[in-house]
Amino acid sequence: CAKMKIRKQRWNIKASEMSKNTLNPIRAIVDGMKLSPNPDKAMIALSIGDPTVFGNLPTDEKVLQAMKDAIDSHKYNGYAPSVGYQKSREAVANFYSCPEAPIEAEDVILTSGCSQAIELAISVLCNPGNNILVPCPGFSLYKTLAVSLGIEVKHYNLLAEKSWEIDLQNLESLIDDKTACLIVNNPSNPCGSVYSKEHLQDILAVASRHCIPILADEIYGDMVFPEHTFHSMAALTTDVPILSCGGLAKRWLVPGWRMGWILIHDRNQVFGQEIREGLVKLSQRILGACTIVQGAIESILNNTPQEFYQDTIGFLKSNSEICFSALATIPGLNPVRPSGAMYLMVGIEMDSFPEFESDVDFTERLVTEQSVFCLPASRVSPFVPDSSPSLSLQAFEYPNFFRIVVTVPEDMMVEACSRIREFCQLHYRPVVPEGNDLDQ
Amino acid sequence: CAKMKIRKQRWNIKASEMSKNTLNPIRAIVDGMKLSPNPDKAMIALSIGDPTVFGNLPTDEKVLQAMKDAIDSHKYNGYAPSVGYQKSREAVANFYSCPEAPIEAEDVILTSGCSQAIELAISVLCNPGNNILVPCPGFSLYKTLAVSLGIEVKHYNLLAEKSWEIDLQNLESLIDDKTACLIVNNPSNPCGSVYSKEHLQDILAVASRHCIPILADEIYGDMVFPEHTFHSMAALTTDVPILSCGGLAKRWLVPGWRMGWILIHDRNQVFGQEIREGLVKLSQRILGACTIVQGAIESILNNTPQEFYQDTIGFLKSNSEICFSALATIPGLNPVRPSGAMYLMVGIEMDSFPEFESDVDFTERLVTEQSVFCLPASRVSPFVPDSSPSLSLQAFEYPNFFRIVVTVPEDMMVEACSRIREFCQLHYRPVVPEGNDLDQ
Ligand SMILES: Cc1ncc(COP(=O)(O)O)c(C=O)c1O
Ligand SMILES: Cc1ncc(COP(=O)(O)O)c(C=O)c1O
Repeated sequence: CAKMKIRKQRWNIKASEMSKNTLNPIRAIVDGMKLSPNPDKAMIALSIGDPTVFGNLPTDEKVLQAMKDAIDSHKYNGYAPSVGYQKSREAVANFYSCPEAPIEAEDVILTSGCSQAIELAISVLCNPGNNILVPCPGFSLYKTLAVSLGIEVKHYNLLAEKSWEIDLQNLESLIDDKTACLIVNNPSNPCGSVYSKEHLQDILAVASRHCIPILADEIYGDMVFPEHTFHSMAALTTDVPILSCGGLAKRWLVPGWRMGWILIHDRNQVFGQEIREGLVKLSQRILGACTIVQGAIESILNNTPQEFYQDTIGFLKSNSEICFSALATIPGLNPVRPSGAMYLMVGIEMDSFPEFESDVDFTERLVTEQSVFCLPASRVSPFVPDSSPSLSLQAFEYPNFFRIVVTVPEDMMVEACSRIREFCQLHYRPVVPEGNDLDQ
Repeated sequence: CAKMKIRKQRWNIKASEMSKNTLNPIRAIVDGMKLSPNPDKAMIALSIGDPTVFGNLPTDEKVLQAMKDAIDSHKYNGYAPSVGYQKSREAVANFYSCPEAPIEAEDVILTSGCSQAIELAISVLCNPGNNILVPCPGFSLYKTLAVSLGIEVKHYNLLAEKSWEIDLQNLESLIDDKTACLIVNNPSNPCGSVYSKEHLQDILAVASRHCIPILADEIYGDMVFPEHTFHSMAALTTDVPILSCGGLAKRWLVPGWRMGWILIHDRNQVFGQEIREGLVKLSQRILGACTIVQGAIESILNNTPQEFYQDTIGFLKSNSEICFSALATIPGLNPVRPSGAMYLMVGIEMDSFPEFESDVDFTERLVTEQSVFCLPASRVSPFVPDSSPSLSLQAFEYPNFFRIVVTVPEDMMVEACSRIREFCQLHYRPVVPEGNDLDQ
C-alpha cells in the first residue's frame, strides 16, 4: 500500500529517558548490593532504614489484630475511592488535627506509602523547569522523583555543628522565581535531628517571605526522644500552605504495608481547590493504598497502646546513646548526637585516615575488614554495579560522613561499635599540627 | 541584600500541568458522580467495575486465610525489594509459566495493582512525543496515563460486528516511526470479548512486521466462559516481546488489595537488560505492593480451589446470558454477546430513540426514570461537575453504546433488564424506511 508510512523493520527498543533518569540510590544499594565482608565476622548491617529486619522491633499485636479484623469483616476487598475511604481519611484527620492546625477528612489523601505521598505532592506543585529546595544531607527520594520529572533540585545545607539546623541564609539564597516548593524533613533521615519551634518558625518565615509552599516530610513525626518535642510545621504558621507527608511505616513499624498520607494544611486557601483537585486527579493514576490496611487504620491509630510508642522511642534513644557515646570516644570520628528518628550521622576526620580517599572508601573497607556496613553519606557508586555516569549515585549528598541506623539489637550495636573502634584504631594517623612540621 | 534575586511577594500556586492532564474518566464518574435517580425505584448500578460491591461475589476463604497467615507469620512487615519478594515473584512465575512462554522469578515485577503495572510498562517503553496504540472502545487508563506523560494516543477500532476483533487494517495504518507500543486488552473491558488464537496471531503478525512491542493487558486472563479458551499473547509468538500486565483484582475478586504484576516475555532478548533495568528503576519511585499481600500470594495462587474459579465464571456466564437474551429482544438495542470478563456492550439504535441525542443522554435518562445506571461508552462529561474542556471525558471513546457490568446479583440483573425494557418501550420510535417517506 503506497500510502503506508515506512518504518524500519528491525527491533530497536530503548528504555525511556524517564526510566533512565529515575534512580533511587538507597534502593539501588539495598537491592543491588554486592559487598564482600570479612568471612570471619558475621555481617552487621547498620545501613538499612527498615526497623523490622532484625525482629527486635515488632509492631504491636493490636496493629496486627486490626488487620485481621479488617480481613474478617469482608468489607475491605473492593476498590476504595482513589484518595482512600472516607472513614479512613477521617481517622487520620482526627488523629492529627489540633487546634493550631485543624484538619478534616477532606484534607487527607491516603497514598501507597509516604513515597507516593511525596511523589503526588511534588507532581502537583511542580512543572518541568521548576526547582525544589531539598536538604543536604537528605533523603534521596526527593531528588530521584524530581529529576525523573524534569524538575531541578537545589540542595540547601544543614549545619552539622548546629545539630543539623538549616543554613537559612544559604536556603534563602537559592530561591528564585522558578522555585515551586521547599522540602523540610523533620525529624530527619539521615540526621536524627529534631528542630526546635524557633527554628521551624525561622524556616516558615523564609517560606512566607518568598511565598513558597512547603512539603513537610514528617514521616518520623512524634518519633523524638523524651526530652525533645516534635512540632508539626503546620501548627506553627497561619499563612504558609503545607502538604505534610506521613505514614504508618516508621512509627508503627510496618514499612512494607505501604500506607502513607498527605495532610493538606491550607487555612488561607492558598492552595485552593486547584491543588486539591490536582492531587485527586494524580491519585487516580494508580489508586492508593491497600484496602485492608485502610480498613485497619482507624483501629491502628486509636487502639495502639501508648506503651508501644514509648517502648519504641525508649529503645531508639537507648541504642543511639550507646552508639553515640561509644563513637564519640574514638579518635577521628565525630558523631552528631541525634534527638529522634532512627539514625545518627558520624563525621570522619578524613585527614586522620590518610589511607582512605573518601567516606565511601572508609565504609567499604569497614565492610571488608570488620563486616560492618554503614551507608556513606556522599557518593556510593562503587557499591552499585551499573552506576550511570550521567546521574551520580549519592545517598545523602554529604561527604565525609556516614549514617548509622540505630534499630539493630543492642548487642549488635555494641559489637558494631567495638569493631568500628578497632577499625579506626588500626587506620588512624594523628595529624601533625602544621606549626610542628619542620620540613616546610 | 543586593545580590538576592527578586521574587514577586504574593502567593500564586498553580496545580502542575501534569496534574491537569491527568484524568481518569471512570474514576471521576465513580468518585464524583451526582446522579438523580427516580426516588420511587431503588438504584441499580450496572456501572461499577468492582465485583465486590454487592457482596454476591466474595473472594475465597482460602484467599483470606492466606492473608491472615501472612500477618501471623510476622515475616511480611518490612520493606520488600521494590520489584517484590523473590519468593512471591517466583510464585507468580510458576503460576503463569508454560512451555510456549516460560518465565522465571526474574521475569516478574510485582506492582501496586495492574494499574501500576500498566503505568510502569508505558513509562519504560515510551518517551514524550512517542505514540501508543490503544483499543477503541477500551479501558480509559491507557489514555489517562499516556496523556499525562506527554505520549500521544492513537485509537484503533474494534469491530462490534466481529465480536470486537481488532480492525487490523486500521491498526496497521496508524503505525508510524514514533509508535512505541501496542496495547492489546484480552479479555476486554468494556467488551467482554475473548480473542481466538488466530486473531491473536494476526495481531502479533502486525506487531512483528513493524517491530512494535506489545503491552498485553491480561488482567481478565482465564476469566472466559467454558466454551472459550484464553490464550496469553506471549504463548503465541516467538519474536514479539511482550509485557503482560495482570493482577489479583479480578480473578481473585480483591481489587482493593492493589496487587498487580508485569510478566516480561522476551525470548529473543529484544527488550534486553535495558528495559528490565528501566522497570526496576521505575519501581523504586514508590515501591510496589503491600507486603502482606505479597506474603500471601504464593498460597493464594496455589491453594485457591478450582471450584472458586469455576463458580465465578459460572455466575458471570449465567448473568451475562440473562442480560444478553433479555436485551436482545428489546427493539432498538443491540447487545453484543460476551465470551468472558465481566462486561457486555449494548449498541443503541439512536435513530429509533429520537428523544435522545447520544448514549450519554440515553443513560442519563435511564437513571432519572428507571434508576438504572450504565456507563455510556462515549462522552460522559455531563455526569462530571468539573469536566475540563481541554481533556474530554470519555469512558471508552465509543459512541452509541453503553457498558453493563454483569457482576450484580441475578435478581438485580433481571430487574434492571426489565426496567431497561420498559424504558426502551416508552421511548422507541420505529424508523420509517426511507422509501415509504412520501414527503420527500
Ligand atoms: C525521610 C523519609 N521520607 C519518606 C520515606 C518513605 O516512606 P515510605 O516507606 O512510607 O514510602 C522514608 C523512608 O525511609 C524516609 O526516610
Ligand atoms: C482492562 C483493565 N486493566 C487494568 C485494570 C486495573 O486493575 P487494577 O485494579 O489491578 O489496577 C482494570 C480495572 O478495571 C481493567 O479493567
